[in-house]
Formats: sequence, C-alpha cells, structure tokens
Amino acid sequence: MASAAKKIGVFTSGGDAPGMNAAIRAVVRSGIYYGLEVVGIIRGYEGMINGNAQVMNLRSVSNIIQKGGTILKTSRSTEFMTTEGRDKAAIFLKKENIDGIIAIGGNGTLTGLLEFRKHWDGQMIALPGTIDNDLYGTDYTIGFFTAVQTAIEAIDKIRDTADAHERVFLIEVMGRHAGFIALDSGIAGGAESILIPEVDTEVNRCATMFLDGFKKGKTSSIIVVAEGNSLGRVTNVANRLKETTGIDAKVVIIGHVQRGGSPMVGDRVLASKLGVYAVEMMIEGQDNVMAGEINGQCTLTSIDDAVNNRKLIDPFKLKIASILAI
Amino acid sequence: MASAAKKIGVFTSGGDAPGMNAAIRAVVRSGIYYGLEVVGIIRGYEGMINGNAQVMNLRSVSNIIQKGGTILKTSRSTEFMTTEGRDKAAIFLKKENIDGIIAIGGNGTLTGLLEFRKHWDGQMIALPGTIDNDLYGTDYTIGFFTAVQTAIEAIDKIRDTADAHERVFLIEVMGRHAGFIALDSGIAGGAESILIPEVDTEVNRCATMFLDGFKKGKTSSIIVVAEGNSLGRVTNVANRLKETTGIDAKVVIIGHVQRGGSPMVGDRVLASKLGVYAVEMMIEGQDNVMAGEINGQCTLTSIDDAVNNRKLIDPFKLKIASILAI
Amino acid sequence: MASAAKKIGVFTSGGDAPGMNAAIRAVVRSGIYYGLEVVGIIRGYEGMINGNAQVMNLRSVSNIIQKGGTILKTSRSTEFMTTEGRDKAAIFLKKENIDGIIAIGGNGTLTGLLEFRKHWDGQMIALPGTIDNDLYGTDYTIGFFTAVQTAIEAIDKIRDTADAHERVFLIEVMGRHAGFIALDSGIAGGAESILIPEVDTEVNRCATMFLDGFKKGKTSSIIVVAEGNSLGRVTNVANRLKETTGIDAKVVIIGHVQRGGSPMVGDRVLASKLGVYAVEMMIEGQDNVMAGEINGQCTLTSIDDAVNNRKLIDPFKLKIASILAI
Amino acid sequence: MASAAKKIGVFTSGGDAPGMNAAIRAVVRSGIYYGLEVVGIIRGYEGMINGNAQVMNLRSVSNIIQKGGTILKTSRSTEFMTTEGRDKAAIFLKKENIDGIIAIGGNGTLTGLLEFRKHWDGQMIALPGTIDNDLYGTDYTIGFFTAVQTAIEAIDKIRDTADAHERVFLIEVMGRHAGFIALDSGIAGGAESILIPEVDTEVNRCATMFLDGFKKGKTSSIIVVAEGNSLGRVTNVANRLKETTGIDAKVVIIGHVQRGGSPMVGDRVLASKLGVYAVEMMIEGQDNVMAGEINGQCTLTSIDDAVNNRKLIDPFKLKIASILAI
Repeated sequence: MASAAKKIGVFTSGGDAPGMNAAIRAVVRSGIYYGLEVVGIIRGYEGMINGNAQVMNLRSVSNIIQKGGTILKTSRSTEFMTTEGRDKAAIFLKKENIDGIIAIGGNGTLTGLLEFRKHWDGQMIALPGTIDNDLYGTDYTIGFFTAVQTAIEAIDKIRDTADAHERVFLIEVMGRHAGFIALDSGIAGGAESILIPEVDTEVNRCATMFLDGFKKGKTSSIIVVAEGNSLGRVTNVANRLKETTGIDAKVVIIGHVQRGGSPMVGDRVLASKLGVYAVEMMIEGQDNVMAGEINGQCTLTSIDDAVNNRKLIDPFKLKIASILAI
Repeated sequence: MASAAKKIGVFTSGGDAPGMNAAIRAVVRSGIYYGLEVVGIIRGYEGMINGNAQVMNLRSVSNIIQKGGTILKTSRSTEFMTTEGRDKAAIFLKKENIDGIIAIGGNGTLTGLLEFRKHWDGQMIALPGTIDNDLYGTDYTIGFFTAVQTAIEAIDKIRDTADAHERVFLIEVMGRHAGFIALDSGIAGGAESILIPEVDTEVNRCATMFLDGFKKGKTSSIIVVAEGNSLGRVTNVANRLKETTGIDAKVVIIGHVQRGGSPMVGDRVLASKLGVYAVEMMIEGQDNVMAGEINGQCTLTSIDDAVNNRKLIDPFKLKIASILAI
Repeated sequence: MASAAKKIGVFTSGGDAPGMNAAIRAVVRSGIYYGLEVVGIIRGYEGMINGNAQVMNLRSVSNIIQKGGTILKTSRSTEFMTTEGRDKAAIFLKKENIDGIIAIGGNGTLTGLLEFRKHWDGQMIALPGTIDNDLYGTDYTIGFFTAVQTAIEAIDKIRDTADAHERVFLIEVMGRHAGFIALDSGIAGGAESILIPEVDTEVNRCATMFLDGFKKGKTSSIIVVAEGNSLGRVTNVANRLKETTGIDAKVVIIGHVQRGGSPMVGDRVLASKLGVYAVEMMIEGQDNVMAGEINGQCTLTSIDDAVNNRKLIDPFKLKIASILAI
Repeated sequence: MASAAKKIGVFTSGGDAPGMNAAIRAVVRSGIYYGLEVVGIIRGYEGMINGNAQVMNLRSVSNIIQKGGTILKTSRSTEFMTTEGRDKAAIFLKKENIDGIIAIGGNGTLTGLLEFRKHWDGQMIALPGTIDNDLYGTDYTIGFFTAVQTAIEAIDKIRDTADAHERVFLIEVMGRHAGFIALDSGIAGGAESILIPEVDTEVNRCATMFLDGFKKGKTSSIIVVAEGNSLGRVTNVANRLKETTGIDAKVVIIGHVQRGGSPMVGDRVLASKLGVYAVEMMIEGQDNVMAGEINGQCTLTSIDDAVNNRKLIDPFKLKIASILAI
C-alpha cells in the first residue's frame, strides 16, 4: 500500500504489564527487519506531548524480553485528556514525520486513541497490554499469564498458613471490572469460593456453602476475591462474612506485585507474535485496529469494538469452580 | 444413557507431567459430585495387572492441585504390552465392577488403550497428560505450560552467564518427536536459533546465520535444541557447529527437571477443565475418546485420531522466531 | 544421663514458619535413629490440652522437608494461658509417659514453656521457629531466610512498576518488634530508606533525604517499612510522607505470604541441624534450653535468656543501607 | 593513611557468580560516597591488558543489584598468565593513575593477584565471588547461596518424578574441589546419599546403604554428587552403582544454570557488606588482602592465606546428612 507508514512510534501507556518489553522488542526488531524507522516514545501520551522520544535500534531492545516493567516508561497522562494536550501530541508526531503509532496498553490507552483520531490522521494500531485480560478482540492480553501466576504463587503460600492454622483467608486479586484473574487463580488455587464482578454474590448463599464445607470436615479455606466484585473490597467482604457466619477471616491483598516480575512464557510469546503482526499490519496500511490473538490466530478488531464490547467469562470455568470446591 | 459407567477407575501412565494431580483431583471430585464411585489405580497399567487400586474420596485429593508428579504413581508397563498382561488387567477391572476408565498420559498411554480395546469393553476416556504437547485433538496437553516455563527459567539463567562470558550456549530441551517446547522456549528466551524435529536444519545455513550475528556485534548467543532435531543430540550439534564455525559452544541439557515442579496456572486450569469434562462425557456414555481443548472449548477426539494424526507447529511462530533473531 | 527422656513429644506453636516441617522431620528421624519414641502433638499446646497426638515413624515425615506450613498444625492456645489449661496439658503428658518435649516456635511459644515449667517436670527443649528472627541465642531463626526471600521477590516485582511509572512505593514487611526482615530485604532490594523498630525515624529527615534523591535524578523509590517502626503502620507512614513532601506514595503490604512457601536451603539446613542437635541434647539430659546456632556452631541458651534478651541489629548493615542509598 | 588509593578499578574475573553485580554496585556507590574515583574494568584481567575500562557513576550501577551475571563481563584471561600480559596490565593501570584495584572472583582470580604483585605496586583487595564457596577466610562466598538454591529447586522438581516413577536419580551439582554446594543441597533436598570431594566414597558401602533403604520400603532415591567426588563424574558413578547393585539410576547434570539467576538475599547482602568494607579498607591503606565475612563480622585475610588454605566442611553437617537419610 503506497501510503503505509515509513516511520513509526511505539509506546506503552497506562498500568504496566509483564510482557510490555517483549512487545516493544518485537515491534522494534520486526520494524527494522521490514525496513521501517522505529522511534520509542517515552511515558506514553505524556512523551508525545512533551516530545520525549528516541530512535530505537536492535541494541535498544536486546536482553529485555525477560524483564518486567517497560523500558519506555508509562504514565496516565491527564494532559492528553484535554484537546490542547492531544493537539500538542499530534504536532510532535507531524514534526517528527512519524506516520504510524503502535500503542501498547489497556482500555484507557485504546480510548485515548479513539480521541486522538480527531487530532491526527496517521495509522494507529493498538496492542492489548494489561494484566486484566478485559479487552474484547483477543483471547488473552499481554501480562495476564504472569499476573495470574503471581497470584497463584501467593495463594499457594497462603494455603500453607491456612492449613497450619486452620483458618479462612480472603485473598483479593486485581480486577476492577473483570474476573479473569480471580477465576483462573481461584480454580488453580483450589479456592472454596471465587467472587467476581460478572456474577452477583449473595452473601447468604456464600455463607451457607461455606459453613457446609466446615461441616464436611474442611478445616481451612481460601476465598479469592476480585476487586470489583459485588460485595465490595475485600475488607467489606470480611465484615459481611463475619456478620453472617461469625468467622474471622484473615485478609490478604496481593496488590501491585501482580503487575511486575519477569513475564511468563505465555506473555513473552503472545507479545512477540502480536508485535510482529502489528508491524506487518502497519505495512499493509491497516489503521484504527487492535491486534489480538483469537483461537491461536492473529486477528484485527476495530479499536471501537475492542473498547466497547465486553469479553465474557468462560461459563464452563464458572461451573467447574463450583464443582471442584465440594 | 442407561449403560453409562457407575464406577470408574482413574490412573496416570508413562512419563509424569505437572498437572497430573490436578487432573486426578478434578476426576475424583467431579465423579463424586455426579454420584460415581471413583477408584485410583496405582502405577498405571501395572496397577491394573496387579490389582493395585484404592477407593478415592474428597480427602484423597485435597491439597494436591499444586503438586508435581502424580499421587497415583506412574510406570511404563512392559507386561501390559503382552496379551496376557492386558487380559489380567481386564479381569481385574471386571472383578472390581469398574465399568469406565479415565487414563491420563501421552502417546504411549493412548496406544495402550487402543490395544486394550480388544480385551475389555468398558468405557475408555483419555486425558492428554504429557509435557511434549504432541497429541492431536487438543491445543495444549497437561504439563506443557510448566515444562516450557521450567525451560525458560533455565534459559534466562544461562543467558546471564552467556552474557557475562560472551559465550555461545546450546541448550537441549525435551521433545523427541515434536518441537513445541523448543519453539516456545526459544522464542521466549530470545534464542538466536531453534532446532526442532519438524524442520530440517542445514548446518551450513545455521552456521552462516550465526557468524553473521557475531559480525553484527552480538557477543553471546543461545541456541535452543529439541532432542529430536535433525542434527541429533545436542553434543552432536556442538560438534557440527565447531567443525563449521570453529566456535566452542557450551552444552546444557535441561533434562528431567522439565517434568517436575508445581504446575503453572495454565496446566492446573486445563487439567481441572478436562477432568470434569471427561467425567461428564463418561456419564454421557462416550467411549474410546480423548478429551481435549480446542480454541477454548472442550472437545472429544477418537483415540485413534489423537494417536495417528500429527499436530502441526504454528508456522507464524517459526516466522517470528527468525525475524526476532536478527 | 540416667534420667534422660525415652519418649518425646514434638510440636509446633504460634505463627507458622517455613522450615518447621524440616525441623519436625529432623527431630523424628534423629529421635528414631537414637532409639527414642517420638510422638507428634497436634496444634501445639492446644493438642496437649486435648490429648491430640500421634506416634511418628520414618514414613510420617517423608517428603515434607520441602513443604511450607506444618504437618503438625499450629495454634495460639488461649486455654494454655490459664492454670487449668496447663494442668490438663501436664496430665496428658504424664498419662502418655512423655518425658521430654521439643517445642518449635517463637517468643510466645518459649514464654509458654516458662509457664509450663511450674506444672510439669519433664525435659523441655525449644527450637527457634519464627520468620521474625527475633530470638536471642541464635544467629537466625528457622523461617527467616524464606520470609526475607519472599519479601525480596515482591520488592523486585514492585520495582518494575515503580520504575515504569516513576513512582514511590512504601512496602510493609513483617516485624512488629524487630527489623531483621526489613533490614535485609531493604538492603537486598536496594531500598532508598528502611524503617525499623530499632531506630527512631524522624519524618523530616526521611523526607529531606527523599527529596534530595529526586533532586539528584532518581525517578522512582522503594521504602521498606517494618510493621513495628516508630511512625506506625505503613498507611500512617504514607500519610506522614504526603504531609511533609507532597508525594503520593503507593502502599503495598506483603503480609501473610511471608509465612508460607517452600523453605529456602538456609531454613532447611538450619532446621535439620537444630532438630538433630535438640534430640542429642535431650538424650544428654538437657532441660529448659533453646537450641540455636551461633557462628555456625549449635549452642544452648536458657529459655529465660532467649526470651528476655534482645537480639541486636548488625550496625554495619544499618550503615551500608544508608551508604548504598545515595 | 597518606598513600591510600584515590582512584580505584573494580572488575570481575573467572566464572561468573550471582551477586557480582551487587558487589560492583556496593564498590561503586561506597567509593563515590567516600570521594574516590571508580573505574570499571571490562572482562577482568583481559580488560586491564587491553585498556578496556569506563568511569562508573551512581547511574552506572542503578537497578543491577537483582541481576545475575556481571555488567563488567568476565573472562579467563590466558594472556594474563604470561609475564608480558601482566606487564601490559600494569602499564595500563599506571597510565590511568589507578592506584588500587578491587578484584571480584574465585581462586583463579586471587592467584592472578599474587602473580600481579610482582608487576604492580598499587593496592589490591579481593572479594570472594564464586559459587563454589571454596575460599578460606570467609564463611560464604558471593554466589554460593544462589547456586545452592538453584540446585535445590532442581532437586525438588526431580523428586516429583523420582516419586512418581519410583526411580533412583543421581544429580550432579558443581564443585570440582569442594563439596559445599553438594552438602547443603543434599541435606536440604533430603538426599539418601551425598558424594563430595572431601570424603572418599566406598562404592560398596554406598551400595549397601542404598539397598538397605529399598528393603526398608523406600521406593525412590536421590543421590547428590559433587563433580569432584572420588568416584568421578556422575556417569561413572551411575555405572559403578549399576555394577554393584544392578540399579539403573537416571542421571541429571544441573550444570551452568547454577551460575545464573537473580541473586538470593544472602548473596546480595553479603556482596553489599563486602563491597563497602573493601572500599573502606582500601581507604585505610590495606593491601594484598581478601575481604570476607567470618561469624557475621567483616574480616581481612591475606590473599596468600585465602588461596593456600583449605576451608573445611562442617563435620556436623556430614553427620546429620547420614542420620537424616535413614
């Protein structure tokens, strides 16, 4: 396609996720492989506004595939939420002759691109980089595999103590709007109960099930709680549980460790595939799309669809979670 | 279905794989949930022949989801390869009124079931439990995620030394017939080259590529080698490389550690899904099938097809492996 | 010594610590090796009171050296704090002809022994099992190595995010009365500041140092905070820091994961040494002592001294922590 | 001291060890803290000969404490073994006005310093950086804690398979001249037998003990073998075992992974202490010494003593290893 980008900018934005570096590496290396010039924009939209960027070469991305965080830094730019901010960003890109951008981030990052469309007419391709796995148009997001593994390693450790003390633990994992991390880590952690935003929790039913378990001889219990579940944050859940059952559960919030760490194989491979694919689609002239993987195949979804559709929880997972908790 | 099994036996056979315990747990718990009697057969086919089995209850499988190995033990039974052996096994199952078996294992285990068909007419369902991921009819096998993660953790460590000493390392991972572990761990480990059984390696082309890398300024290098690649075991590869390039590569064989360890989330969730699904299919009256997961959905494949078809390597992964090695 | 114990009871009490199982294993195996009968008392002092115990053999402790938690369970017994409770416990031991006990736990457990002395005249030997490392009479306690490693793995992950977002993180580690975990994980985590109970923190001085770091070009920062530091729990510290510097630090509480997990080599080896040594000292007729390791040598300290003396922080570590934070 | 060094060079040499980066960081930061100029010499003695060095600042060593390998690279220089090579190295140091060097490495590195003494009269201080822990004058060497932890993680995984298959595994860990890694990882791994260079192994006695274990009901077994044990490399041991007992043991060589990986807390703290201490001793005018830690205190030992004395294995560890293997 005659008009396809010759010089592209790549950046990470919003919450960091393990595998972002692997994605940057794949974009830079495949960009160079295909003859593009690649610029790394620092601190996401913030860097576009302030003109903070650097030319990337093979060296810039060597030995980063295994590293957590993002070498390009990230931020949540408030200035980019203003028309003036977005104008500044567009001016910078034009001045630098950057005619395509590859944005790695989650829902907020993609929404930013939708707004930016009105200010700039270069090609825009997004890569789903967020631990939450809550983007439509891809089976998994870059960072999810590692976050859920980090959660399970914490849950395994807490189970040691739960067993030793015969206690109940409520473990809060990330997920304000989606229960993917909670569901997978709950199943894998052998949790007695899993509270997720997608399913309303009746505290009485939960309590009954819970007391039943103790009647059947269970002496310890793990409940995995997504931040955005219907009973509220984990301390609220503990209070509700105390009121209805009298049980004094211990509370653990896994927190920010879920964002960090060396990415698991799954995130590195996904990031590598999508990074190369995004560059190929850039060269093909694609615009305004998110590169995702569905059923093992790289696929494009319009950014609008990716942002505005809800990815559903696998109902069979919900079912087995309750069967296996007997 | 009137004739569906009421008492089932579950066992693990062949090479052990992380997640086998999670699969046993899922079979036992969902079996009990659905009102079946579940018996654990010890040491795979060996236990059938010798009548080594025990009734399983909820307690038998508590706190095992996170454990490597298999609580039911495993073996490669030579006696089962004989008609007499298989007859003995059939007699045991009849005597115990076991009318369905769920076998967790790899290619050899499934082939055993095909032979056993002639001796016993109960229901047979297989679960793909092998680190090699070389079974047709499922996107992933139970154990693969962990094995490839173990490989990458070793590769990451070796890269520290490779960088420090500016050396070349040849790292052999498991895979006599399939390159799945090598391909994913090679991509994720940023390997300069990946040798797999599915692709013939021309030693000269490999050497050229290799020397090119050094000319371009690379000072260290990782090559991931599947056991079954066309140049032979890793020490042969090292010799060939030495002959053609003069480079003295260090050899590391990751070996049996790839079979062990606490299963990753991916293996635990897959094992949990397939275990429940296998029990449900048993109750539905299914027979002579392997329960797998394709595109996120549980699916049945005839054991014959699972054994006799070859699962293909993702060609896009091969492509990005070479692009990203520039 | 003619009167030395022939039948001993072993138990774990108080907060669980990684390596308690390794200690139990060492006590049981060496007890059997030296011809003693060994009984495992369940749930610490609670089990003595309720007569909950079981004979241990070589099998009882096989394959537990690598496991977190404690197979003998643990508890904080309120009944044992009463004279009646302790009397019941003494009656049980006499009835069972247990003439020596080996108690694995921390400060509370040892204090319990001091009280129990008035009720029972068998031999009592303690093993220091607590993640806090706050017992006098041993360089390290069983569980400390693992807890501090768990903390550092969390800190390493959080640093990824701190760097990516250029943020300040306050990380709370365990330690109500002692800063051992905080000091070692702070040094090893490259923390900019470490707040421990042993040193009064002046919030202004801390703030100044902190702002200086940012002036010198630091863009992210990790502060490690022991629970018992002089500014209070980590959320208080965050508020104080906000007031004095305006900086909005993120708060992470590592929490209960520090108690769990497979014990590090250090804890396994220490537990193995002290377990064997405690049995040997039991046979020698020792009483009312804690078995510890000082300068690599097994040593006895009276329980009174162990409980009532304060183990000091290494001043050179304090010094290097501040030098290396420049 | 009037004559103490004002500009120092730091380098790593010989086999890399986890924690070398933490040591470099400590030398650089404390050097700057105390007003010295610090130069990093690349690739050890090789870099001195070739004049490959760079000025170090606070930035050069930020975010490296957690990294394996060495940012200064390392090598085993053959040219430095010649008089000419050492002369070149001395000329470089003089030209650069480097009047003190801090060398991080093992036995070979220290021996190099002894030779270099004849060519150069600046101050020389060594830091013990080697996974083998075989230097006299320090309780532990930088890298040992991580290497032994890497070994134990492999052993834990292999035990899964050993148990599942009821097999015997011979696991070779590093240690050509010393059994420290083997002894600690053998005790911590619950090995049935540990073969180390310090103790002659009688194959018959080993075989008897081994068969006894099987008679007593053991169904699997782990034997940890140091490279330099008296029966030779692990494949020889396997052959000898086969001859005497008929048992077909599986062989695993853990190999180079033991050198890599993010350093454990123990190595980071030790490296930090010794790095600062070495700089302080440099400023005090010390020369020709190794900085080590004995009984928790930083100590100097003459390089001659460090190289020519043998550090002894703890005999109590040997004893408990055999008691706990019953």
